[in-house]
Amino acid sequence: MPRSIQGLAAGLEWTTFRALLPDLREKRVLDLGCGFGWHCRYAQEHGARVVVGIDLSEKMLERARTTTYQPEIEYHRCAIEDIDFAADQFDIVISSLALHYVEPFDRVCRKVHHCLTPNGAFVFSVEHPIFTALPAQSWYHGPAGQRLHWPLDNYQEEGPRQTNWLTDNVIKYHRTVATYVNTVIDSGFRMTRLEEPKPDPEITDPDVLDQSRRPTFLVIASIREQNANR
Amino acid sequence: MPRSIQGLAAGLEWTTFRALLPDLREKRVLDLGCGFGWHCRYAQEHGARVVVGIDLSEKMLERARTTTYQPEIEYHRCAIEDIDFAADQFDIVISSLALHYVEPFDRVCRKVHHCLTPNGAFVFSVEHPIFTALPAQSWYHGPAGQRLHWPLDNYQEEGPRQTNWLTDNVIKYHRTVATYVNTVIDSGFRMTRLEEPKPDPEITDPDVLDQSRRPTFLVIASIREQNANR
Repeated sequence: MPRSIQGLAAGLEWTTFRALLPDLREKRVLDLGCGFGWHCRYAQEHGARVVVGIDLSEKMLERARTTTYQPEIEYHRCAIEDIDFAADQFDIVISSLALHYVEPFDRVCRKVHHCLTPNGAFVFSVEHPIFTALPAQSWYHGPAGQRLHWPLDNYQEEGPRQTNWLTDNVIKYHRTVATYVNTVIDSGFRMTRLEEPKPDPEITDPDVLDQSRRPTFLVIASIREQNANR
Repeated sequence: MPRSIQGLAAGLEWTTFRALLPDLREKRVLDLGCGFGWHCRYAQEHGARVVVGIDLSEKMLERARTTTYQPEIEYHRCAIEDIDFAADQFDIVISSLALHYVEPFDRVCRKVHHCLTPNGAFVFSVEHPIFTALPAQSWYHGPAGQRLHWPLDNYQEEGPRQTNWLTDNVIKYHRTVATYVNTVIDSGFRMTRLEEPKPDPEITDPDVLDQSRRPTFLVIASIREQNANR
């Protein structure tokens, strides 16, 4: 997304994401795509006993390590789809705005199911499929530069999208809402919440209000089923 | 939606809807918004023991009755949100493309929960929120009349939309995907499937293929929870 709205939009996502997190006290937490470690530190500060953050970017992990002073947190360099943790190793798995960079979402869900304890929570957010469907990820503008509407196309064509966010040639993987939901269910989770964060209606900033015109994020909370007959 | 694609699109919805129906044999089925009774007759033909169809339109019910020769089926004139059936009266509640005409979706879900037996199925389809967000429900066209993309706006503003489908001044109620899903969950159901029907990729008809460019329908299958602690 454009850098100008990144901060605002990220706040929108976090408000919803945080509300869907279970009590973190004494929990073992895994953060998939931990980036600079912000969510890992949040989990530890809110009582998590063990926190593991994984990310593919050594550069991000370096910064995560230099800003993390809590011994309960460890970081590993690993692609999200390549995690290989023991069964029942975690009570909570979180992932904030990372899984739309991962192609095999079904494999990730199976691995999360494997390392989560029964009744453990899996809470993740992604860019909304309405937002990832077209690579441009931009409003359709009128002649005076006004935002006419959000253009949607190629929604059902799942697969890579080449965007130009932050660095050139970032690949995101577009999936439909149906695919996100059904993959979670098929992997042995019970869906407990689906959110499409929207701004507080009292906000008057036009850039924030535009976030009401189309969904920007999809946040899904689920519980690992106890009966793992799969 | 435009009449020209109504038949094609309805086929798309029905293929998905049918696949989500449980075994109908010996079941007691309620159809909310039964229209001409097509789904009621389908249920009876597939073994349902009792079928009740309700609709607000006396005109539709008249036609339903004149084309229905099965004594297992009965029709009642009633607004969907005003149903008042006994607890555990049905095994399956279905509703095809009717609930986006109903304002109090939460009330409908609570009433469906009440009249469904534990582990009973609630399967419904609606026009997709992407489709109901703007009242025009139309592609954005280029200067040569080509379909440039599907315009999305006002997504988070839930409420009535005045459309001009079939008769003038039809009111549809726009709700987000999140609201559909969370209302179902909050009413005591377990979501088992969310589908956004898409055309068979082997089809070459351009009007059908355009149905891949944006989701047209939302279909949700759910099971009434056994523990009704609400």
